[in-house]
Amino acid sequence: MFQQLGLIGCGLIGGSFALALRQAGLVRQVVGYSKSPSTTERARQLGVIDTGAPSALQAVAGADIVVLAVPVAATESTLSAIRHGLGEQTLLMDVGSTKGDVVQAGLRALQHQAGNFVPAHPIAGKEVAGVEHAEGALFVGRHVILTPTERSRAEQVQRAIEVWSRIGARVLTMGAASHDAALAAVSHLPHLLAFAFMQSVAQQPDGARWLELAGPGFRDFSRIAAGDPTVWRDILLANREEVLRQSQAFREALVSFEAQIAAGDATGLGDAIGRASRARAALKPAFSH
Amino acid sequence: MFQQLGLIGCGLIGGSFALALRQAGLVRQVVGYSKSPSTTERARQLGVIDTGAPSALQAVAGADIVVLAVPVAATESTLSAIRHGLGEQTLLMDVGSTKGDVVQAGLRALQHQAGNFVPAHPIAGKEVAGVEHAEGALFVGRHVILTPTERSRAEQVQRAIEVWSRIGARVLTMGAASHDAALAAVSHLPHLLAFAFMQSVAQQPDGARWLELAGPGFRDFSRIAAGDPTVWRDILLANREEVLRQSQAFREALVSFEAQIAAGDATGLGDAIGRASRARAALKPAFSH
Repeated sequence: MFQQLGLIGCGLIGGSFALALRQAGLVRQVVGYSKSPSTTERARQLGVIDTGAPSALQAVAGADIVVLAVPVAATESTLSAIRHGLGEQTLLMDVGSTKGDVVQAGLRALQHQAGNFVPAHPIAGKEVAGVEHAEGALFVGRHVILTPTERSRAEQVQRAIEVWSRIGARVLTMGAASHDAALAAVSHLPHLLAFAFMQSVAQQPDGARWLELAGPGFRDFSRIAAGDPTVWRDILLANREEVLRQSQAFREALVSFEAQIAAGDATGLGDAIGRASRARAALKPAFSH
Repeated sequence: MFQQLGLIGCGLIGGSFALALRQAGLVRQVVGYSKSPSTTERARQLGVIDTGAPSALQAVAGADIVVLAVPVAATESTLSAIRHGLGEQTLLMDVGSTKGDVVQAGLRALQHQAGNFVPAHPIAGKEVAGVEHAEGALFVGRHVILTPTERSRAEQVQRAIEVWSRIGARVLTMGAASHDAALAAVSHLPHLLAFAFMQSVAQQPDGARWLELAGPGFRDFSRIAAGDPTVWRDILLANREEVLRQSQAFREALVSFEAQIAAGDATGLGDAIGRASRARAALKPAFSH
């Protein structure tokens, strides 16, 4: 399907995409570039890429598919750096967790190549980062959301849908604003809450001793707090309006739970917890455990 | 070690304790009672108990070890119901998730039998309730916190330590107040946050559609929100002062994160997330994944 993948950012997601494409027989050659030469070299040693390039621009030369897997804040500068090396028909995608900012970055940084750009967000990951954790099956059964821009060409959107589908993902297409609102609620806010929770407990005098007593429920609840600080800092800032809107809505819900607890309102509290418990239990089986 | 266990409450925790004792060869006979006759019967059919008793009082007759595995709010009434059936040397324990209220209930409901009462909290569980999920290995490697009252006899505390140790638990002894402060931070607050989060998202107009996009991070973070509403209602109310104290501290941490996001303070936000991420990563390996 493709001759050469130009991969910018050889981390967990970018590396997993390269492995998935290769394992599906969808690409012949993978040329990769990472800001840190040691990362590029590790990706080569691990067989995630065939060749390391000394620059992003050189990594896209001759590629008929290019994927940006860099922190969202680096999207615009990376697009500007590679645009003159992109082929006329080269499918260009990112894998960023926020889309409104990425769409704008694409429209600003790209000229005629903007028609080939199809912003993408694979909802997949691990609490560990780095190319050594990359795996070709990472996207199997996962949602991948495409948010085409006003300039994305229909046939490139179609090719993007086909690529992700062939590596096992469940592809959805929606507007960037809808994506950012949804992900603020089900991904960005949970991370923010987990970060605030860990900091709140850890900074109390007895916090370290208390954490010794943490059980399995705590372990699952707080796992996402171990996420990469730079990545999550950029995501929370890039999607700040929606994240703050969700955080505000969450605090209102929390304060109303607190009021029921303080008042000893067993009936009201039981009903509220029951609604939350049913909402969680109603999630489709794939996500329920 | 024991001739007969009297089990009040044949659910996940009580049933698992009975199975663990039996599998360790620590008890000959298990007599069980649950408020719902069908639960008692199911426990018997599953071999978790040998005999079902028609009342809590009859379940403790002839027992040399009695365990209460009932919602914490039912502790005092249950102790009052069984106290006249307890033997002079019978070891009496509960498994409640809060301890200050249980200690007070014990001192109020018990007379001379108070010396045999050793409040206990095994920090173990599943997001599913019910005797059909009971397993003898549930407590292996888990912390069990004992909070002896001012009247608990030293030899009974020693026997309690030995029982839990022999079924694989890591036993700690502390005051009820210290227990309740610690558990509010690492167990009760995470549950409250997960309940408030699920309710906040589910009650928004697009919430159901958003939840369709939830990924693995969300799945882990929200798993505890599926907890039993009655059990958690009682825990949050029984430990309300400490829970509200922790919820307040959490909201202050969240608001300061929000301020950094709103101000676009990348440095401050990155540092704060970094501290939270390191605190989570620093947890001992047993709990880190």
